[in-house]
Parts: sequence; structure tokens; C-alpha cells
Amino acid sequence: MSLIKTISDLHTWLAEQGRNSKTLGLVPTMGYLHEGHLSLIRRAKAENDLVVISVFVNPTQFGPGEDFEKYPRDIERDYQLASSAGADIVFNPEVGEIYVPGASTEVEVKGNIQKRLCGASRPIHFKGVTTVVSILFHIVQPDRAYFGQKDAQQALIIRKMVRDLHMPVNVVVCPIVREKDGLAMSSRNIYLSPEERQQALSLNRGLKKAQGYLASGTEGCRTVETLKRIVREEIEKEPLAQIEYVEIMEAETLEDIEAIEPFRSALAAVAVRFGKTRLIDNTVLQWREDYNAAHAAEI
Amino acid sequence: MSLIKTISDLHTWLAEQGRNSKTLGLVPTMGYLHEGHLSLIRRAKAENDLVVISVFVNPTQFGPGEDFEKYPRDIERDYQLASSAGADIVFNPEVGEIYVPGASTEVEVKGNIQKRLCGASRPIHFKGVTTVVSILFHIVQPDRAYFGQKDAQQALIIRKMVRDLHMPVNVVVCPIVREKDGLAMSSRNIYLSPEERQQALSLNRGLKKAQGYLASGTEGCRTVETLKRIVREEIEKEPLAQIEYVEIMEAETLEDIEAIEPFRSALAAVAVRFGKTRLIDNTVLQWREDYNAAHAAEI
Repeated sequence: MSLIKTISDLHTWLAEQGRNSKTLGLVPTMGYLHEGHLSLIRRAKAENDLVVISVFVNPTQFGPGEDFEKYPRDIERDYQLASSAGADIVFNPEVGEIYVPGASTEVEVKGNIQKRLCGASRPIHFKGVTTVVSILFHIVQPDRAYFGQKDAQQALIIRKMVRDLHMPVNVVVCPIVREKDGLAMSSRNIYLSPEERQQALSLNRGLKKAQGYLASGTEGCRTVETLKRIVREEIEKEPLAQIEYVEIMEAETLEDIEAIEPFRSALAAVAVRFGKTRLIDNTVLQWREDYNAAHAAEI
Repeated sequence: MSLIKTISDLHTWLAEQGRNSKTLGLVPTMGYLHEGHLSLIRRAKAENDLVVISVFVNPTQFGPGEDFEKYPRDIERDYQLASSAGADIVFNPEVGEIYVPGASTEVEVKGNIQKRLCGASRPIHFKGVTTVVSILFHIVQPDRAYFGQKDAQQALIIRKMVRDLHMPVNVVVCPIVREKDGLAMSSRNIYLSPEERQQALSLNRGLKKAQGYLASGTEGCRTVETLKRIVREEIEKEPLAQIEYVEIMEAETLEDIEAIEPFRSALAAVAVRFGKTRLIDNTVLQWREDYNAAHAAEI
């Protein structure tokens, strides 16, 4: 296990490992690893001979006034955690290693898929993500790349970019990992005061309530307006919660829908601010008459 | 030698050839091949074990009212010519094979390098070029890709895209190939009437005059305004020529310069319309006091 800072050292290492006769998994992260990231590394390790995790806080995906400067960083801790989860290499380049002097090339997935949800308040965010992920794919050339469902919109956009540009990589999206009390894991959770942390549980609680109501089979339970209101009301109970959005959309295209249709997935997604901290969470909603009726009690 | 229409067949063929233990050259073209394209194929064949030439008239690089529909196509002829020049495969996909349904991902090199020269009159052109070239690179995964200096701005932009995005491919730019009388080869030359064809020689003549004047060492011969006037006046002699631009710029960045500086290359580039046909041509200008003085007579 080693920490590699340069592209040249990374390529040397890959050649030494006989990369061409092995499978390679990449886990792109911004570091400050938590159990969610580690689940990606473990999955990558189970499915590939070699696993590279990149730790790079990407400046181009932060807007003015966002938390690029104060985004939590601890490469020593990341190295230990990544190692224990089975990564072979931590690739931790400087900004100048990823963005060459004068770099001005952008990769952008146009359309609602990037304009809605987080794209509405963070207009340059996803362009920064797709550009840096393209760069990392070209540098590492993995067979598979692992992303978390926590960033559901990001995962959709990256899948679309890979499909549209025919990138030779398989995108694997892994389930959200939550704290025991249901809070979705995020590097930004450390910003939360104890009181905010407690109130932040309302995100997951609201999403689960909506899921439960859908599963109940009640008249009108598939109506998006009703389901959104259920989520919103649960979060609004918390005095420190400032809702940025509560949305339910078609799960692939992020187009508007009026009801959850049988066998078509919908994405229920929320973004909520607590003070300066912005949290997101989501769940996939599905309506299958027989299934939902049978499992309503479990959800 | 075969003609391949689908990505799947191309990948099968590459695997059968043992691509991983061989070097692979790609020559991306829009077909209707001429000696310029064939020079790229021959160069690719000399430098690689396997050579793929793509023939794809890319809709996204044509603006409204441009010649996408009537761009000349003759895949049988292309196949014969590519074969005779040493290509192993002609990859000739349908539009729907390159652009999947709903594709909306764009690769764009921002800045003056794409806004000036041809970018001024063709605002979406280079974004279409960089997007399709990215797609072809991802599909074919060549070690080297070959482009002509005839499209000097395109070559610069592709080089920059590859550098900015760390694409694992070497870009090779090959010299302009000209007819015996000096006309730069282009698939669009077939649009020209005999009279237009004759007057089109003024592009190369103007560029050579400027080059000769620079080499003369005359007082003020390095002044860009003067050199541009020399080119322009030569072309303006022709009654059918409508100049779109005559420019001399820094050769890598396409920034303005006032004079040709020692050991710094400048790009002298022209775009001229003859009726509905738009022709481009260019030459690289260099000033090296000793060299130019000694070689003035030869140029």
C-alpha cells in the first residue's frame, strides 16, 4: 500500500503490477473518508485485482462562497482507513497535477439532469465533477469506477457521461451508508453542532415516511405532491432546518412526474441547510402493487 | 482489410488482432478521402502495428445552413483508397452508433483558441469536433491519432483537449498536402467551379508572399499588420474571393501578436469563400535572423 502524488508514479506503479493482465477498480473521493467511502473500496476490492482510491478536493466543483477552502482534509487518516479497507494505492495529487497550466477544457452533461436538484443552487458544480472524473478516468483507466448513491444526481450524471462519450469504464453505484440513527454518512457531517446533528435526522425520517405511505396502498398514495408534502412536513418540524429542495422525479432523467407509476423508479431527494452546512439525502421510490402491499409493514 | 459499422464489431476485431500487445493508430476523417488523408494513413501505418481510419460525417460540428447534408460522401471510394494506403479497418458508423439516444454530453475547449479564426463564424463547430473526437478516442483507444495541419486550429484544440483531460493518446499533426499548383487539398474543393478553383490559388500564393517578405529581412518585415496586408492584397485581386479572415496569431494560443518574434512561431491563417464554398489555408511563420537571411532566396 502506498501514497502516490504524481501521475508518472501512478503509471509506473500500474505497469509494475502488470495492469494489462489484471482488473482495476477506481474509487474517486474528496477524502475525509467515512464508512460510505470504505464500502466502495471494499466492493471495488471484491470485484477487481487492483484498487486505486483517489483523494482530491476538486476546486472546479465548488462555487464562489462554497466550502472548498475549509473542506475537511486529513490524508494520514484517509491513508490508514483506505489501507484497512483494502485499497492498493491512495492517489493524492496536487491541483496542478490534475489541471495543467492554462487548462480550459470542460466536460458537461447538458440538460435537466444537471440543472435540477443540486444543479439549481450549484450551477457549476456538476460540470466540475464531470470534468475531474473524466480526467481521473483518463489517468487511471480503470475497468470499474465506484460511486455512492448518496450523491444520486452525481451518479446519474456520471453514468450518462460515460454512456454518451462511450468511456471504456463500468460505473458501479453503491447504496447509501447510514449512521445507526439513520443519518446518511457525509464528510460534511462534522460541521454539524450536536443540536443540528439531531435535527438532521429529519431528512431520512421524512424520506422513510413517504416510502411507508407509498407502500401503504392508501388511495392517492402514489401522488407526488402528497409524498413531497409528507417529506417536507417532517423536515419543517425542525427549527434549524432550512429546506433547499424536496423533490420527487423520474429516477433516470430527473423529469417531473405526477405520480409513482408501476415498475418505474422515482428519486425522492432532499437538500437542507443547517446553518452553513448543506446536507443531502435521497431514496428510490418504487410502486409494485403486489410487492408493496405485501411489504408495507416492513418498511 | 474490412469495413466495420458497429462499435461491437470494432472491439471484436481489435481483440482478435491482439490489440493489447500491439500499437494502434487512428485517423479520424469525414471521408471523401484525398491525398492529405492518405498521407495520414501512411504515416500511421509506418508508426503503428494496426491502423483504424474512421469515416464519420459528424452532424454536431455543422451549424445551421452549413453543408452537413451535401457534404460529399463515397464510402466505396474511401474504402479502396484507405486500403491502398495501408489502413487495416475503415470504421464507418451510423450517427446513432456514435450518439446514443438522448446524448447531451459535450466536451469543449474554452477560450480564444476556439473562439477566434473559424470559431468566430462557426460558433458550435469546435465543440462538435472535440466531442466526437473524444467519443472516437474512447471507442478506439488508439496509441496515436493523426490530424492534418490543414485544419490548424482544430489540431491545436485537439492537442489542448488531450493535454487538459490527460487523454492517453499521442496526437500527431502532419503537414498540409497540396495539389501541384499549390491548392491545399480539401474534400470541399470539388464544390469549386474551374474559375473559382483558379482564383483559390491566391490563398497559398498570399501566404507564401508573406513568408517570403518575412524572410527578406527588410525593415519592418516582422510586423504582423504588414504581413497580413500582403496576404489580403493577394487574395483581394481575385474577384470571386470573399475574405472571411486573414489572421496572424501566436501559434499555440491564438493570442494577438504585433510582430513575429525570434524563435516563437506564428500561425498565418486564412478563410475565404468562393460562392457557397468556404476554403481555409495556413502556414507557420518563424523568424530566425541567421536562418531567414540565409534561406530567403529559397522560400
